Amino acid sequence: MDQNIVDAIKKIESDIGKLSSAQKILLTTDGSITAILDILKGHVHIETLVQEFREADSDVAELLSIDKGDNVNYRVILMGPGEPLMHAVSYIPVKRLDNDFKDDLIKADIPIGRILKKHSIESRREIKKVYVEDMSDEMHDIFKVNSPMLTRTYNIIHNGEILIWIKETFPYSFFRD
Amino acid sequence: MDQNIVDAIKKIESDIGKLSSAQKILLTTDGSITAILDILKGHVHIETLVQEFREADSDVAELLSIDKGDNVNYRVILMGPGEPLMHAVSYIPVKRLDNDFKDDLIKADIPIGRILKKHSIESRREIKKVYVEDMSDEMHDIFKVNSPMLTRTYNIIHNGEILIWIKETFPYSFFRD
Repeated sequence: MDQNIVDAIKKIESDIGKLSSAQKILLTTDGSITAILDILKGHVHIETLVQEFREADSDVAELLSIDKGDNVNYRVILMGPGEPLMHAVSYIPVKRLDNDFKDDLIKADIPIGRILKKHSIESRREIKKVYVEDMSDEMHDIFKVNSPMLTRTYNIIHNGEILIWIKETFPYSFFRD
Repeated sequence: MDQNIVDAIKKIESDIGKLSSAQKILLTTDGSITAILDILKGHVHIETLVQEFREADSDVAELLSIDKGDNVNYRVILMGPGEPLMHAVSYIPVKRLDNDFKDDLIKADIPIGRILKKHSIESRREIKKVYVEDMSDEMHDIFKVNSPMLTRTYNIIHNGEILIWIKETFPYSFFRD
């Protein structure tokens, strides 16, 4: 585990309070979050809030190591077996997608972890940042609680390039045991 | 998550009792166990009990999809920041190892998850079995508790082939919170 990630977890605990084992793992693992939610909470589904293609602005181009103006898939989803447990935003450079993966991403509400598994895609995950966000009105409407949001960003790397940039966030009051 | 793994977790809970979230994740995740132990328990080290090259017998050949008599690396280790938390056995077909990976595997006590990360190896993990074993005298001497052992086997797949077969086991009395 990178020291800066260990330090980020310590900082969160000193800022907002102790984290459960499940929370620490959800914030730092390089494994599939879908698989973890499946086993802790029951088979998860996703609800797609936004699914569209966009031209990368300079921020997104930098995140993904692509050129400004390149086509990216932008997706915002909620995950959970019933009520939402997690909110996720992803950016995928379209030129790095093969067609089968692209079809699954666009046509159906399938979590990315399950798409990677279905296509037997070999990859590695590189955790970028782990931090706390204040709860926005939008998140309050989604999760129906008042709580700081535990948040992380990471890259899924495939063929030596960033295939997916993901930001995941969930309330501190979830996954407490 | 494969249904047979979900069912295996349910069977364990009905046989020996409720599992904690951390135990369920440790038994089913496709992420690095080293990274999880690092964040839950502090930076882990390994103690190598056995490290040797062997000819594959027919059972090992079948596990790894190689020919009987092929050269394999056999390693038995304990992992933990201090007292051992987990016992792991691994088989690696030598012909699928590149030299840098092989050097790290042989020369130093580095957990496999950390070797994969160091060399930026893209892979996927395929969980094979999750089950309970009775505690052997050897495990009792290592872990100093009386407890059933939570156990799993999985493959790390790289370039479409099994790079590593791993069996991990830890006492049910560990990772309870």
